[in-house]
Amino acid sequence: MFLVWLLVQVMALCTYPNLLDSPSFPEDAKKRARRILQACGGNSLGSYSASQGVNCIREDVAAYITRRDGVPADPDNIYLTTGASDGITTILKILVSGGGKSRTGVMIPIPQYPLYSAVLSELGAVQVNYYLDEDNCWALNVQELRRAVREAKEHCDPKVLCIINPGNPTGQVQSRKCIEDVIRFAWEEKLFLLADEVYQDNVYSADCRFHSFKKVLSEMGPEFSSNVELASFHSTSKGYMGECGYRGGYMEVINLHPEIKGQLVKLLSVRLCPPVSGQAAMDIMVNPPVPGEESFEQFLKEKESVLSNLAKKAKLTEDLFNQVPGIRCNPLQGAMYAFPRIVLPPRAVEAAQAHNMAPDMFYCMKLLEETGVCVVPGSGFGQREGTYHFRMTILPPVEKLKTVLQRVKDFHIQFLGEFA
Amino acid sequence: MFLVWLLVQVMALCTYPNLLDSPSFPEDAKKRARRILQACGGNSLGSYSASQGVNCIREDVAAYITRRDGVPADPDNIYLTTGASDGITTILKILVSGGGKSRTGVMIPIPQYPLYSAVLSELGAVQVNYYLDEDNCWALNVQELRRAVREAKEHCDPKVLCIINPGNPTGQVQSRKCIEDVIRFAWEEKLFLLADEVYQDNVYSADCRFHSFKKVLSEMGPEFSSNVELASFHSTSKGYMGECGYRGGYMEVINLHPEIKGQLVKLLSVRLCPPVSGQAAMDIMVNPPVPGEESFEQFLKEKESVLSNLAKKAKLTEDLFNQVPGIRCNPLQGAMYAFPRIVLPPRAVEAAQAHNMAPDMFYCMKLLEETGVCVVPGSGFGQREGTYHFRMTILPPVEKLKTVLQRVKDFHIQFLGEFA
Repeated sequence: MFLVWLLVQVMALCTYPNLLDSPSFPEDAKKRARRILQACGGNSLGSYSASQGVNCIREDVAAYITRRDGVPADPDNIYLTTGASDGITTILKILVSGGGKSRTGVMIPIPQYPLYSAVLSELGAVQVNYYLDEDNCWALNVQELRRAVREAKEHCDPKVLCIINPGNPTGQVQSRKCIEDVIRFAWEEKLFLLADEVYQDNVYSADCRFHSFKKVLSEMGPEFSSNVELASFHSTSKGYMGECGYRGGYMEVINLHPEIKGQLVKLLSVRLCPPVSGQAAMDIMVNPPVPGEESFEQFLKEKESVLSNLAKKAKLTEDLFNQVPGIRCNPLQGAMYAFPRIVLPPRAVEAAQAHNMAPDMFYCMKLLEETGVCVVPGSGFGQREGTYHFRMTILPPVEKLKTVLQRVKDFHIQFLGEFA
Repeated sequence: MFLVWLLVQVMALCTYPNLLDSPSFPEDAKKRARRILQACGGNSLGSYSASQGVNCIREDVAAYITRRDGVPADPDNIYLTTGASDGITTILKILVSGGGKSRTGVMIPIPQYPLYSAVLSELGAVQVNYYLDEDNCWALNVQELRRAVREAKEHCDPKVLCIINPGNPTGQVQSRKCIEDVIRFAWEEKLFLLADEVYQDNVYSADCRFHSFKKVLSEMGPEFSSNVELASFHSTSKGYMGECGYRGGYMEVINLHPEIKGQLVKLLSVRLCPPVSGQAAMDIMVNPPVPGEESFEQFLKEKESVLSNLAKKAKLTEDLFNQVPGIRCNPLQGAMYAFPRIVLPPRAVEAAQAHNMAPDMFYCMKLLEETGVCVVPGSGFGQREGTYHFRMTILPPVEKLKTVLQRVKDFHIQFLGEFA
């Protein structure tokens, strides 16, 4: 986590309400804690909440979305979840189930975050790959969506289109134009849109902005805004708080069929409720201090410090990778990762095959053994046949990150020499 | 929750480590908090843990089981979960998946806790009912297991036997003899045993004791203890803490095939980790104060007060229900519920049918409308054809519970008159 002080304070007050009398906590932290506790059973984080989540927290999420998009959000459409992963799994479970002769197809980007492939495999759905355009900053190309859906229809029934924006592991931030095209495509093909927007606060490139699918959809006129089904996900685990241990998340659903909504509530109620402490963390994230509140200045300073630091490290990482012969790295426009392409010499590919390993796995294992740096091979996320990548987070402190990057650079040059 | 002070204190210290310097917290609470935080990434509840759970907490769970059973437990066999529901769902998912010509059958008690029927329906498994013996205090009868498995084999492949002990909603506590019989049966039929033991601390009848399946299995000799596969579940949500909002739980697996174990870890890692605050709550539950520690006296007092109060309410509820003509209630040996049988007059059954409702649902809705008392109809848990029940918790404070019981009594007598 990034130690945003207000979060720590409100969580402390909610966990130990005796502190509400302590003069060492700011008034706005107390106000937030009181509001949360009053909405909790027994005024405690230790009681079950409603399966959909604590009412006032869902209201705060709706108000947050309304402010973000300038388009109203309805608390009834908000579901608090156990991190975003839980929400994504739950909605996919509902969308994939239900008869039909052919199996349900779910379109996912390649490279993807492996939650998607894992859940689709669990659910017995067909994974329909669409490839992001590496030569174009990992942009999503609607022509590629058309190709993927056309080929998929020969063996399954494509029903869902998953988008990760900003991208994980690829870090691209989608343009408004691209999002409009995707929505139009989803409408034409009657696909349910699943927008994984957990990195919405993590945008670093000066020429990029986050546009939510909800906002763009709402502004495309009633033909789209009243018909395209959408679920969007957010999380306390990323952004400038990074409070992943609390497992807080929400999803907003738009145009969900009432019958499906009934099924969703039923499915959620089987698991009783998301962790109430995670729900409280979500409330702090969507309800940040405003000018005039005691915590405002410090909060703003902390938020800007975390985000500008990440932006600095994003640039640093891109620049350094692109100085290395045989490594090519797209700009890290958003999210928290670099996903550079590595050119592996044919002899290295042969050596990997001799070890019965994927070539990028062979590379990453050698990197780990020789430098202590642990990165994830691209084959874990999917990549175009014959290309190789790895994913690295930019979370280490700047000086440490510099050391890490230098080690990768030295290793890579030595590796090229070894297998030349 | 039941407000056990040590839990609140340790959770506060873990959430807000500044308090570790405060003189108003007992030393043993600080010691516990430090131990937990040192094992957490970034010394914080806000970071991801390992998918299986924080190491030192799994060690404390293993030590707890070892003390409870007098039989060693291995931390490697402990998985921390998001409440017990999550653990039960996950293990069932693994056991039910995987080919075979006929569908997997899972044996569950009737009446059951509806998590089971819901998850089996989600997973497309066959629910194989075995009936608990209402005339014999809801005991589990191995002859009935034999009947159920014999009939099930005609249309599915029974692989799992679920046991809830102490029972929910039925409140029975199984004898050691019964557990031995069940284990022998599972061994003969090669069934995976799933022991839902979340009410293990909630035993009230003086002539009953909780025996864990793990302990009994371990003491039956190597033929059983090395072969019968078992998963046992526990939770922070019940017992004398009742900290359900934190979603803490664990499962212990015994004799799990290494390949299945690999699958389990993979499946868990997709969801990243259980909430770390719930893991911390679990640590406090399995690591209570010992004589000599500062919190010992107060903790003991609180624990005994919660449990003796529940025992008193269990007896009160049983006694009052059995004074009402047409209600018959088995002893509430354990757990937190009464599940009385109600005799409904034929005219009431007809009236329910005219309303297109199950007769017990009709009864419960009328009870709610006329008295404000909300109970759950037996049909939600399953019951023998033609019998009717409802489930009521014994959680309200004694005086309130008395009022509730009196209202149910008055309503029932009036209901019998109305439909005589």
